[in-house]
Amino acid sequence: MATNGNQAMDEDKSPAPKNYQEYLMLQNLLKCQVLQSEKAGKPVHDEHLFIITHQAYELWFKQMLFEIDSVREIFVVPTMDESRMLNIINRLQRVSLILKLLVDQFIILETMTPLDFLEFRQHLATASGFQSLQFRLLENKLGVKQENRIKYNQQHYMKVFNDEESIKMLMDSVEQPSLLAVVERWLERTPGLQRHDFRFWRAFETSVSRWLDETIYQPYIEETDPKMKETLMAEYQKQKDSFDTILDPIKYNTFVERGERRLSHKAFQGALLISLYRDEPRFHQPYQLLTLLMDIDSLMTKWRYNHVMMVQRMIGSKVGTGGSSGYHYLRSTVSDRYKVFLDLFNLSTYVIPREYIPPLTMSMKRTLSTLSTEVESGIEDQSSSLESSDQSNEDTSQVMFTM
Amino acid sequence: MATNGNQAMDEDKSPAPKNYQEYLMLQNLLKCQVLQSEKAGKPVHDEHLFIITHQAYELWFKQMLFEIDSVREIFVVPTMDESRMLNIINRLQRVSLILKLLVDQFIILETMTPLDFLEFRQHLATASGFQSLQFRLLENKLGVKQENRIKYNQQHYMKVFNDEESIKMLMDSVEQPSLLAVVERWLERTPGLQRHDFRFWRAFETSVSRWLDETIYQPYIEETDPKMKETLMAEYQKQKDSFDTILDPIKYNTFVERGERRLSHKAFQGALLISLYRDEPRFHQPYQLLTLLMDIDSLMTKWRYNHVMMVQRMIGSKVGTGGSSGYHYLRSTVSDRYKVFLDLFNLSTYVIPREYIPPLTMSMKRTLSTLSTEVESGIEDQSSSLESSDQSNEDTSQVMFTM
Amino acid sequence: MATNGNQAMDEDKSPAPKNYQEYLMLQNLLKCQVLQSEKAGKPVHDEHLFIITHQAYELWFKQMLFEIDSVREIFVVPTMDESRMLNIINRLQRVSLILKLLVDQFIILETMTPLDFLEFRQHLATASGFQSLQFRLLENKLGVKQENRIKYNQQHYMKVFNDEESIKMLMDSVEQPSLLAVVERWLERTPGLQRHDFRFWRAFETSVSRWLDETIYQPYIEETDPKMKETLMAEYQKQKDSFDTILDPIKYNTFVERGERRLSHKAFQGALLISLYRDEPRFHQPYQLLTLLMDIDSLMTKWRYNHVMMVQRMIGSKVGTGGSSGYHYLRSTVSDRYKVFLDLFNLSTYVIPREYIPPLTMSMKRTLSTLSTEVESGIEDQSSSLESSDQSNEDTSQVMFTM
Amino acid sequence: MATNGNQAMDEDKSPAPKNYQEYLMLQNLLKCQVLQSEKAGKPVHDEHLFIITHQAYELWFKQMLFEIDSVREIFVVPTMDESRMLNIINRLQRVSLILKLLVDQFIILETMTPLDFLEFRQHLATASGFQSLQFRLLENKLGVKQENRIKYNQQHYMKVFNDEESIKMLMDSVEQPSLLAVVERWLERTPGLQRHDFRFWRAFETSVSRWLDETIYQPYIEETDPKMKETLMAEYQKQKDSFDTILDPIKYNTFVERGERRLSHKAFQGALLISLYRDEPRFHQPYQLLTLLMDIDSLMTKWRYNHVMMVQRMIGSKVGTGGSSGYHYLRSTVSDRYKVFLDLFNLSTYVIPREYIPPLTMSMKRTLSTLSTEVESGIEDQSSSLESSDQSNEDTSQVMFTM
Repeated sequence: MATNGNQAMDEDKSPAPKNYQEYLMLQNLLKCQVLQSEKAGKPVHDEHLFIITHQAYELWFKQMLFEIDSVREIFVVPTMDESRMLNIINRLQRVSLILKLLVDQFIILETMTPLDFLEFRQHLATASGFQSLQFRLLENKLGVKQENRIKYNQQHYMKVFNDEESIKMLMDSVEQPSLLAVVERWLERTPGLQRHDFRFWRAFETSVSRWLDETIYQPYIEETDPKMKETLMAEYQKQKDSFDTILDPIKYNTFVERGERRLSHKAFQGALLISLYRDEPRFHQPYQLLTLLMDIDSLMTKWRYNHVMMVQRMIGSKVGTGGSSGYHYLRSTVSDRYKVFLDLFNLSTYVIPREYIPPLTMSMKRTLSTLSTEVESGIEDQSSSLESSDQSNEDTSQVMFTM
Repeated sequence: MATNGNQAMDEDKSPAPKNYQEYLMLQNLLKCQVLQSEKAGKPVHDEHLFIITHQAYELWFKQMLFEIDSVREIFVVPTMDESRMLNIINRLQRVSLILKLLVDQFIILETMTPLDFLEFRQHLATASGFQSLQFRLLENKLGVKQENRIKYNQQHYMKVFNDEESIKMLMDSVEQPSLLAVVERWLERTPGLQRHDFRFWRAFETSVSRWLDETIYQPYIEETDPKMKETLMAEYQKQKDSFDTILDPIKYNTFVERGERRLSHKAFQGALLISLYRDEPRFHQPYQLLTLLMDIDSLMTKWRYNHVMMVQRMIGSKVGTGGSSGYHYLRSTVSDRYKVFLDLFNLSTYVIPREYIPPLTMSMKRTLSTLSTEVESGIEDQSSSLESSDQSNEDTSQVMFTM
Repeated sequence: MATNGNQAMDEDKSPAPKNYQEYLMLQNLLKCQVLQSEKAGKPVHDEHLFIITHQAYELWFKQMLFEIDSVREIFVVPTMDESRMLNIINRLQRVSLILKLLVDQFIILETMTPLDFLEFRQHLATASGFQSLQFRLLENKLGVKQENRIKYNQQHYMKVFNDEESIKMLMDSVEQPSLLAVVERWLERTPGLQRHDFRFWRAFETSVSRWLDETIYQPYIEETDPKMKETLMAEYQKQKDSFDTILDPIKYNTFVERGERRLSHKAFQGALLISLYRDEPRFHQPYQLLTLLMDIDSLMTKWRYNHVMMVQRMIGSKVGTGGSSGYHYLRSTVSDRYKVFLDLFNLSTYVIPREYIPPLTMSMKRTLSTLSTEVESGIEDQSSSLESSDQSNEDTSQVMFTM
Repeated sequence: MATNGNQAMDEDKSPAPKNYQEYLMLQNLLKCQVLQSEKAGKPVHDEHLFIITHQAYELWFKQMLFEIDSVREIFVVPTMDESRMLNIINRLQRVSLILKLLVDQFIILETMTPLDFLEFRQHLATASGFQSLQFRLLENKLGVKQENRIKYNQQHYMKVFNDEESIKMLMDSVEQPSLLAVVERWLERTPGLQRHDFRFWRAFETSVSRWLDETIYQPYIEETDPKMKETLMAEYQKQKDSFDTILDPIKYNTFVERGERRLSHKAFQGALLISLYRDEPRFHQPYQLLTLLMDIDSLMTKWRYNHVMMVQRMIGSKVGTGGSSGYHYLRSTVSDRYKVFLDLFNLSTYVIPREYIPPLTMSMKRTLSTLSTEVESGIEDQSSSLESSDQSNEDTSQVMFTM
C-alpha cells in the first residue's frame, strides 16, 4: 500500500475514535470553511459554495493520488506478477469513476453567477486554482510532460509554490517514474514481441503491405480512368506514409523527439500487439488496462474542458492583474499536449482489418492462453521442453512481462 | 445570509489567506484522513476511499444545510416579498443538483468490496453512519416528522449523540420551523384562496362534481348492460370517495391526524390552486418552487435507496452486534414515512382536466398577472379602488402571500 | 453473434444504404411519432416527449436484449472456453452503462407535469407500460422468477399479450436458460470445488467454526459479567444459525424451495470460492463477472425505483379504471423478489476475515494461476502427470469450468 | 404547438392505437435496425450498438427540434406576453436535460473498439454523421452562423443533402428567425433601456468610469514606485479599452461585423441590464432564460467535445478517402465560432461590483416589480397617469418587451 506520506501519521498516538464524528475527524473537517467575505464583515452567500466545491475537489484529488501511487508501486516492484492485475484494474476503474464525478461536479459551481463571484473575488487576493498542488502532482504522476506545459502569465507552474514541502513533493513527482513510464516499461515486455517463432513486428509489416496492396494498389493498377487513378495513387501514398511513421524506427523516433509520440517504439509495438490479439486470454486484462488509461486521459481533458466553460461563464475573458486571461490559459491546456496516453488513442490509426492480422503460431497461442506466475512458469519450463526449441526465448519475454 | 453557526467564526482574527492552499485551509483539510488500519499496523488500501467518500458526503451535507437554512430564513422574514423568489429557487435548485451528485457518488464507494471492508471494519468500533449529525439535521430542517422515524435497534436517533453541542443543534432543528413548515404557512397565503369574488375551493368542488357527473355518472345512467353499469357505479363511488378526502375538511384532518397528510387543509388548497393556474405569471415561480420541493424529496429517497443497495452489497443482511441488521433498518427508511412533501406528489391525484378547471374572474386574473411588492401594492391600492369593492380582501391575501 | 431474430432480416434483399439517413433508416424511424392528441384535433405539446422517451427506452431495451442474448449464447456453447470472458465482461459492462443511462433518463420525462399528462392521457386508451414486451423479455432472460412476479389488477403479465409472435417470444424467454441459469451452471464448475486435495467447502466450514470460536465463543467463556455473557451467547447463536443456512445443505435447500435463494448449493459455493480467492489470476475475470451481475441487478431495481417515483409524481395514487393503482403495483416490484442475483449480494454476509480464509494448496494455487483452454489443457495433462496423482480430478473440474 | 411538420400527419386516418405497442409504433420502430454486416453474411456484433446509439441520438434530436421550434414560435407571436415565460423556461430546461443525457451517452458507444468498428465500417460506404440532417437543423435553428461554419474536405455542409425535402428544410432553417434572432429582438425591448428617467446605458457608462477611477486610476496617481505606477497605468488602459468595445457603439459594431459579437448593441445592453438587476421580480424569469441559453450553448460544445474524443479513440487521425481527417474537422468545430450565445458568456467580462451598479429610479423600480400583460397594462395606464409624466415612454418599452 502506498504510505500516507507526510500527512496524518504523526498523529499516530491519537486514541482510537469512539464514533463516526471522531473517525472522520469532522470536528476539524467542518471547521475548514471560513468565508473571507464574512470575516470582512459583508458575508456573500455564494462564497460558501465556492469553498465547499473546491474542497470536495481536493479531497477527491487526494484519493486519486492515493490510487495512482499504489498502482505505480505495484508496477515498479521487480517481482510484480499478473496476480496484481485485478488490483491495478480495480483501482484505475475507481480513478475513472472519480473523474467522471468531478467532471459532473462543475454543474454545481455553475449555479454561482458572475455578479456573486465578483462580490467576494477581491477577498481571494492572488489565490487561484493554478496553485493547486495536488492537481500538479496528479498531472506529473500520470505523466504530463514538463516541456509540454503551457506557461500562465509567463510563469512556470512550479514557481507559485514556495514552501519546501510542496517543492519537494513536486520535484519527487517529476523524478519518480510516472504512470506513463511504468506502463511503458511493462509494455516493452509484452510477451510475443521478441519471440523467434512469431516475430510480431515483421509479420505486422508484411500484413500492412499486403493490405495496402490488395485494397489500394491493385485497384490502382486496374483503374483506367486517369482521374480515379490519380486519387488512388494519392491515397496509397498517404496510407504508406502514415504507416511508415510507425514501421520505420528512425521516423518513429523523430516523432518521439518532437514530443508527438510519448511511448518508446518497443512499447508502442507492445500496445499494438495487445490491441490486435486482445481476445487471447492472457491479453484480456492488459487490454482492459489500456482501455482504462484512455478513459482516464479522456476524462482528464473533459475535466479541463468543463473547467474552461465554467471559468468563461464566471469571468468571461476578463484579464487578471498579472496579464493574460485565465480563460485563454486554461483553453490552451485542453489540447493533445496535455494528453498523456495520446499514443494509445492513435493506435486506432494503425489497426488493420481482422482478416489481415497475422495468425498466431501454435506456441505463441499457447503462451497467450496462459498466465505466468512464478509457480506456473516453473511447470511451463518442463512442458515447454516437450514442445519446441525456442521456448527459452519465450520464457524470457514472458517473465519480463510479469516482472 | 445564514450565519455560519458555531463553526469557524471564532477564528475571525486569523490573517487573510495568502494563496489557494491557505484560503481552502488545505493544510488542515488534508490531514483529516487517518487510516485506523494503518495506525493498527496493517494498512488496508480501501479504508482511504471509505474515509474520503464519507468526508465528501459531509462537506456537501454542510452546503445543503447552509442553503436550506438560508431559504428558511428568507421565508421566515415577515416582510419577505416576491423579489426573493429568484434566490429561493436558485438555492433549492442548487440543493437538487448536489443531491443528484450524491446519489451518483455511491457508485464510487461500491468499488470497495465486502472482503476489503471486513478488513478494516473492526477499527470502526461502533462508528456508524447512523451517527451523522448533519444528516439528521438535514432531515429535521426539511421536515421529517419525529413520529415517523423508525428506530434502529430500538434506539431513538437522538440517543446516539451525547455532546451538548450536537444535542442543542438537534433540538433546535426540531423546534425551529422546518422548510415544510415555512412553505406551509406561505401556501396558506396563496392569493385567491380567500377572495370574495373567486372562492377557489367552492369553485373547484363544483367542477369536480360536474366532471364526475359528466364523465362517469351520466354514462352510468345511460348504460344498459348491468355488468358495465356496476363497474361504472363502483368507479364513480371510488372517485367520489377519493375527492372527499380533500373536499371534506373533517375527512382531510383525519388524514392529517393519522400523519398521512402533512400540510394544513388551507396550504393544500394553495398548492392545488398554484398547480392548476401555474400559467398565470404570478404563479410561475411558486410553481417552480413546488416542483423543486418534489425534486428534492424524490432525490432524498433515491439517495436512501442507493445507500441501501450499497450496504446490502457490502454487508449483506449480516447482523450487527447490537441486534437488527443495518440493511433492514435502512430499507425501512425508503418509504413514504420519510417523504416530507408527500402531499405535493399526491396533488396529481386531484388534478382535473383543463376544460373543467374553474375560469378565473377578471379581478383574480389581474391579481395573478401582478407581482406584489411594497411599492407596487401602494399603486394597486389606488388602481384597484377603480375596480371592485372586494379589493381590500384581495390586498390582504396578497400581502400575506408575499410576507 | 445472436441472430437478429424475427426482425428486419426479411428485408435482406434491400439495396445497400447510400448514406447516413438510409443506413439508420431515419425515413421510417422518424415517422413513428404520431401524437394521438394531434389526430384528435387538440395537439398537446408534451405528448411528443412522452412518445420519444418511451421509444428511446425501447431502443435501448432492444440493445440490452441483444447483449444478454449473446452472453447467454456464449455460456451455453459446450466448448466455451475462457477466451470468451473478455467478450462476456465487455458486453455486460455495456448493459450496465445502458441501464445507468436509462435510470438517469427519467429526469427528462419528469419535466412533463400531471396536468399536461392528463390532457392526452385519454388518448392512450388502455395502453400502459405494463404491456412492454421487451421489458418482460428482459426480465425473463435475466432470470426473474415467474412465481415471484406480482400480479397487476389480478392479471398475469402474460395475459396482456395476445398476438402469437409476442406469446411465442415470451414462452421462449421462460423456457430457454436465463442468464441466471447459465451462470449457475458455470459456477457449479468452479475449479477447486471438487478437488481431492483442497476440499474448499470442508475447509471453509472449519474456518468459520474457528472464527466464531475465537472471536465470540472464547470471549463468552472468559466473560464474567452475566449480562455481557448473555449478549455474547446470543450473538454466537445468531451467527451460527446464520452460517448454518449455507453450511447445512438441507437448510440451504429449504431456502431454495421457499424461493429465498436462487442458486443451487454448489453454485453458491462456487461464487463464495471466487469471492474469497479473487486475487488468484484465474478468478480475476470470474470475479469481475460476479460484480457486473450485481451492478446490473442493482441498476434494474434503481430503474424500477425511479420509475415508481416518476409515476407517483405524474398520477399520484390515482386509481386506474381497471382497479388497483399503478403506483402501488410498481412499488411492490421494487423488492428482493425481483432481484435475480440476490444470492450474490448475500455472499457478503458469509465473508470471513482474510486471516481465516483457508490457504490454498500448492496444486490448487497452480490451477488458479493458469487459464484453461483446449490447447493448454493438453499440455497441462502432461505436466500435471509429473505432479500429483489426483490431477485427473483436477482436470475434470477445470474443463467443466471452461466448458 | 409546433406542428409536426411533414412527418406522420399524412397517416391521420389511421385507427386509434389499441395498446402500448401500437401507440409507440414499435412494430415499425424496432424494424429499423438492419445490420449491413449481417446482410453481407458476416455479422459484426457491435454494429447493433452503433445503429441503436445513433438512432437514439436522432430521436432526441427530433425532440429538441420540437422544443426549440415551439419556443421560437412563442417568441415570434406579436402578442406574446409574459404569461408564456414559464413555458419557454420549462422547454429550454428540457432541452438542457436532453443535451446532458446525450453528452453522457457517448460513454456507451465508446465500449465499441476500433477493431470492431473497422470490421463493419466498410459497409457504411460514405455514410457519415456529417450527413445528419437533424443536427444541421438544430444548429441553424439555434443560430449557428453560416459564415462561421468550417468546411469538411472543402465541402459545404449543405452539399451533402440532395433530396428536395431536406434541402427545403435546411433553407427554411436558415431563413426563418433562429432562437438567437428572436431572443435578440426580445432583448432589444428590455424595459428600462429607453426610459427617460433611468437611461441605463448612460448611467452604466458613468459607473464604469467611476469604478475604474476609484479602483485603478486614483491608486495610480498616488503610487510612487515607478514600476508599480507603470503596471497600474497598463491595467487602467487595458480595462478602459475592454469597456470601450461595448460602450462605444462604433467599436461595438466593428466586432459585430467581424462576427465576434452576435447580438445587436441594443440587445447586448438589454442582456447586461437583466444581469445586473436580476433580483427585480420582473427580471427573474428573463434571467433564468439567459442562464438556460448559456447552459444549452455550453452543453452543445460539450457534446461536440465528447464526440471528438470518441472519434479520436475510434479512428485516430486516420485519413478518410476524401481527404482531411474526421478528427481534425470535428476538433475545429469545438470552438467559439460555433457558440451561438457567446455574447452572454462575455457579459461577465463587463459586470461591475454591486456597489457601483446604478441605483434604480423609483418609477423604474416599480416597472420591474410588475409583470406586464394586456389586462394589467390597461390598469397601469391609469395608475401611471397619477405618477409621472414620462410614463408614456415607459409603457411603450414595456409593451414592446412583452410583445
